[in-house]
Amino acid sequence: MTARYLEDFTVGQRFGSGRLRMDTEQITTFAFAFDPQPFHLDEAAAARSHFGRLCASGWHTACVWMRLMIDHRRREDEARRARGEAVAQLGPSPGFRDLEWLKPVHVGDTISYATEVVEMRPLESRPGWGMIVVRNTGVNQRGEPVISFISSAFVERREREPQAS
Amino acid sequence: MTARYLEDFTVGQRFGSGRLRMDTEQITTFAFAFDPQPFHLDEAAAARSHFGRLCASGWHTACVWMRLMIDHRRREDEARRARGEAVAQLGPSPGFRDLEWLKPVHVGDTISYATEVVEMRPLESRPGWGMIVVRNTGVNQRGEPVISFISSAFVERREREPQAS
Repeated sequence: MTARYLEDFTVGQRFGSGRLRMDTEQITTFAFAFDPQPFHLDEAAAARSHFGRLCASGWHTACVWMRLMIDHRRREDEARRARGEAVAQLGPSPGFRDLEWLKPVHVGDTISYATEVVEMRPLESRPGWGMIVVRNTGVNQRGEPVISFISSAFVERREREPQAS
Repeated sequence: MTARYLEDFTVGQRFGSGRLRMDTEQITTFAFAFDPQPFHLDEAAAARSHFGRLCASGWHTACVWMRLMIDHRRREDEARRARGEAVAQLGPSPGFRDLEWLKPVHVGDTISYATEVVEMRPLESRPGWGMIVVRNTGVNQRGEPVISFISSAFVERREREPQAS
């Protein structure tokens, strides 16, 4: 969704960015590296915890969003190039806000991610660029939201400011 | 810092939770799995990007915070148990807010993480538990902040509500 120019977005636009079934190996590999708490590592320990069953680190659910977004953007860019269209540059993300882990993600859950444009504006301070603000969500196979957060990104404008040459 | 009871915290308290030197293998392994953008994967591609040099995914910098926090908490818990002290339970995190990536994290940078208590209160809705709100930051070896975010967690209270038995 992000290899577009600022002018190609509208507030309220919504994009699916992909989905992933979370399996035991993915969950425990991530947890071993970054969040080694018993309920993310071991089924028996998880059964004794407040989660009841093995579940993914919340950071893992967020990182999967990033991965699927990159893959989605790459597919979009390739399709644009194949059609002979220009591909906009995407600047670095300054961060995000209001991340909520709404439900545990258990082994075997399939999380589908989507992104909705909530705000967009040209940047006075950075000619040729704009900022979009989006809400990213992940829902499980029962349609229950498991993660939600707001992120912003710098995107190129189609209409450049006049420049001295 | 989190295996304490609500009553053991005070607003303004600050805890170091550890530090890590980010090397090429860590940065590229994370990026390959979760954020496969050229400037996180390949030194030559990074040199051509706005970052100039290979740098870590912002999500990686956040996940390293989580890992060091878990290790820190485990060391604190073990020390408490060795002194014969009770170890408080820690509930799940509902999420976080206002995450900012302030500077790129380059290969060889050592990031030191700290946590400061900014708010705390007992929970009316959940007897025996309270909520603490903390600001987490990471600074590089030059003292420059690279990441900052606010998180909250449920913590056990030392003074339990009277319960029917």
